[in-house]
Amino acid sequence: MHKSKGVIKMKEILVETSARHIHLSQEAVDVLFGKGYTLTNKKDLSQPGQFACAEKLDVVGPKGKIKASILGPTRPDTQVELSLTDARTIGVSAPIRESGSIAGTPGCKLVNPENGAEYEIATGVIAAKRHIHLTPADAEEIGVADKQIVSVKVNTADRATIFGDVVCRVSDKFATAMHIDTDESNAACAFGNVYGVVIK
Amino acid sequence: MHKSKGVIKMKEILVETSARHIHLSQEAVDVLFGKGYTLTNKKDLSQPGQFACAEKLDVVGPKGKIKASILGPTRPDTQVELSLTDARTIGVSAPIRESGSIAGTPGCKLVNPENGAEYEIATGVIAAKRHIHLTPADAEEIGVADKQIVSVKVNTADRATIFGDVVCRVSDKFATAMHIDTDESNAACAFGNVYGVVIK
Repeated sequence: MHKSKGVIKMKEILVETSARHIHLSQEAVDVLFGKGYTLTNKKDLSQPGQFACAEKLDVVGPKGKIKASILGPTRPDTQVELSLTDARTIGVSAPIRESGSIAGTPGCKLVNPENGAEYEIATGVIAAKRHIHLTPADAEEIGVADKQIVSVKVNTADRATIFGDVVCRVSDKFATAMHIDTDESNAACAFGNVYGVVIK
Repeated sequence: MHKSKGVIKMKEILVETSARHIHLSQEAVDVLFGKGYTLTNKKDLSQPGQFACAEKLDVVGPKGKIKASILGPTRPDTQVELSLTDARTIGVSAPIRESGSIAGTPGCKLVNPENGAEYEIATGVIAAKRHIHLTPADAEEIGVADKQIVSVKVNTADRATIFGDVVCRVSDKFATAMHIDTDESNAACAFGNVYGVVIK
């Protein structure tokens, strides 16, 4: 919080929409693209070191398939982040989970539409728990700690919304930004440059 | 509001999810199903006199098509209610509108997949503004008036949410229920028997 013209002004946080995407292990990359293949950085993302790849995959479930982007770099575990609309489309019951918390989650098949290569995962399909990436400085300014659950008010036109159950994640490797999925973005009309305010 | 065991308890309102659907004029029914055809009531809905039809149509836009249910009875104007996820899928920019407020909205093509019949609408594609149908008695108990804009708190597991910009609609022809679309339902994990509380 800082004072501005005599009014206490809460720090506003950029609210970004994460469309469905896939994080791949190097093993998955090897199977889907060929041994030792390196994913192509198409566009840097707001989180330092993270990038959208040129390559895309089909995410296949019992009821259908859906095309998704890959985010790099590779990670220890393959993980597929879908909106609940997406998950229903392909017939997978994705739970709300923090990134990396994939124990007990359902799996799916990943298919490279260019070469037909397939990679099956037994777990790893989640709907991301809405969250805020925070630098330690911004977390201190806002007065929140790592793992704290807060609400965030987004005053968009037509569909103003307060999102509860938002988890704060604090690291000096982060840039400060809130991430919501496409269902949440559509539910709040949170398009373009949208900012939110933390409510504790 | 009424007192219960010494605690003031706000009246809870049933929150129902409206999946994408179509309201047809009799002219549209005639073109798509044959002159004088009567839609088949498959299931009564919570609003008195409203029903889901056995018949379905493809909603076709510049980027794709999507299957949708028809709700009966017929209305003066054909109207297609999509989630913003759906609208993006078919490439139509649906504005947030109250039902019936279709001036200036985009159109689409409706196709009967059984016989190939097509009906084009110049306007009528909307994303429904979230709303509460209220009986006059419930409106009085909650203390809201027709057309009043309120917020509704939904305390679901994992994704507690307060929806702003909710319009109240009061009529003795209504049953009391809040309607949200599938994006909003997924954003709040508002599945099954979910109730909300009005916050003014």
